[in-house]
Amino acid sequence: MELHTCLWSEVAAFDFDKSDFQRLRAAFPDMTLKVHENAESFLSSADHVEHLLTWEFPEDWYSKCPKLKQIMTPAAGRDWIAPDPNGKVNVIHGTFHGEIMAESMLGALLYMNHQMPSMQRNHASRGWDRNLQKDARLLRHQRVLIIGFGSIGRVCGQLISGTGAEVIGVRRTNAGMENGMQVVTTDRLVELLPTADHVVLVLPGDTSTDNFLTTDMIRLCKPGVYLYNFGRGNALTTDTVMKVIDEIGGAFLDVTDEEPLPEDSPLWQQPNVMITPHSSCIYQDYKTCFVEEVISRLT
Amino acid sequence: MELHTCLWSEVAAFDFDKSDFQRLRAAFPDMTLKVHENAESFLSSADHVEHLLTWEFPEDWYSKCPKLKQIMTPAAGRDWIAPDPNGKVNVIHGTFHGEIMAESMLGALLYMNHQMPSMQRNHASRGWDRNLQKDARLLRHQRVLIIGFGSIGRVCGQLISGTGAEVIGVRRTNAGMENGMQVVTTDRLVELLPTADHVVLVLPGDTSTDNFLTTDMIRLCKPGVYLYNFGRGNALTTDTVMKVIDEIGGAFLDVTDEEPLPEDSPLWQQPNVMITPHSSCIYQDYKTCFVEEVISRLT
Repeated sequence: MELHTCLWSEVAAFDFDKSDFQRLRAAFPDMTLKVHENAESFLSSADHVEHLLTWEFPEDWYSKCPKLKQIMTPAAGRDWIAPDPNGKVNVIHGTFHGEIMAESMLGALLYMNHQMPSMQRNHASRGWDRNLQKDARLLRHQRVLIIGFGSIGRVCGQLISGTGAEVIGVRRTNAGMENGMQVVTTDRLVELLPTADHVVLVLPGDTSTDNFLTTDMIRLCKPGVYLYNFGRGNALTTDTVMKVIDEIGGAFLDVTDEEPLPEDSPLWQQPNVMITPHSSCIYQDYKTCFVEEVISRLT
Repeated sequence: MELHTCLWSEVAAFDFDKSDFQRLRAAFPDMTLKVHENAESFLSSADHVEHLLTWEFPEDWYSKCPKLKQIMTPAAGRDWIAPDPNGKVNVIHGTFHGEIMAESMLGALLYMNHQMPSMQRNHASRGWDRNLQKDARLLRHQRVLIIGFGSIGRVCGQLISGTGAEVIGVRRTNAGMENGMQVVTTDRLVELLPTADHVVLVLPGDTSTDNFLTTDMIRLCKPGVYLYNFGRGNALTTDTVMKVIDEIGGAFLDVTDEEPLPEDSPLWQQPNVMITPHSSCIYQDYKTCFVEEVISRLT
């Protein structure tokens, strides 16, 4: 078997080079591995590629790859691989993101819940104000709503419920119980938002999720609710956050409606907003998790 | 029964007033509760006090309280209640701190592990640098040493192991397994420090723990180790931290050898140090947890 890779990236944690594939080569000593470092290199071999690991695949590449059978991509989002116009190529997305994002998300919840934005200011002013955190309440006594409860949301929910917090998953279809967590459908949001202490978005980025969390919905929540976006920025706009900024406890945004978030965005200067640069999965483990997943799929 | 309280504090989260005792009154409708707001008020009743809830009890109060039978204090540390010179008064310390400190400690671990000091700088500069976190590794694949593994350390270890991290408890005596965690005695530190990714101190503040974690011990650790102090500041001095500052990944200090940490301390300006003002237990739940504990002891 011959396996091609197009897994370069400007983000170091996502930039696979030859050394990242040692485990793969060891697992399949008879396999030929062609690690491409740019599109030109890949396209010069395109006519005989059958199996491909890639970050991106534009639609016009399909006609250049007549023998292509399957694409495996580390990406969780559906943003980068165009669908096959002929519907023949099998596209497999990585499913390992939950366990990485779960740590980022739990960290974000504890960050906001422990009033770390205030603690940052206390540190920056070399202060010792022991009353800045007086309104903090244990996460274990609170309710966390995770909106977008697919494979990622479920693993995140599992880790968060380990603190004792009550996690409720929200998704389009399939209500029920899952690993001890209640899962409800989106039509119940109006009833649930007023009971949530933390509302976490893990929604995919298609147009159906544009402006999903509206100011009206946020105003149904408890005053002082904490908002989190770990899905895609389109679901919670800058405009929405700014309109409710004085009514919420704060927002931890790993994704924003424009990325990079412009320097003149009003979000940067809000004392109760923390922004990370779409980095919830930026861990060294990302590459090893993907390689392990490729091995298990090819075995 | 008559119960007296001396539970005023400058820290709002620790300042009990009448409203905090509603649950207690409801549980014991026949009890007389005397809530004192200062030492003078208490001392004027001292001669007939039998049962006392208090933050502090100086030694010379014992002679003023001839009928005193028991003291219950919310404090975990042994710093504030003088021992009874006659050895007759039963002093009971709160045992609820673990579940509060566990959230602060897990938050601190995820904070350092997710490279949040770098993320703070990224935010402050309105940047979008997705390579600042490139060395991050999942906590679940790492080893955490908790030095000081009494009732608090054990509960913290339990929560941290929920992430999948390997937690090893270290204490003076009683090696063995506890709730799936390995517990070793301090004589094994020399062998264990080189294997730890995170070293957390939860030691009490008596003189036997002065300068417990020395520069020599820290230099046994992996380069890039993260240090945490959630016990008392005497165990890890400013001087020690400053000597190893370029060899460690960072330090999260909730306690320091001088408190408040002086404005001119060099710790404040280290990019890999985060300081919180001895606030790991500053949660609204503190007062309710203590009241619940008093109820269960009096029942």
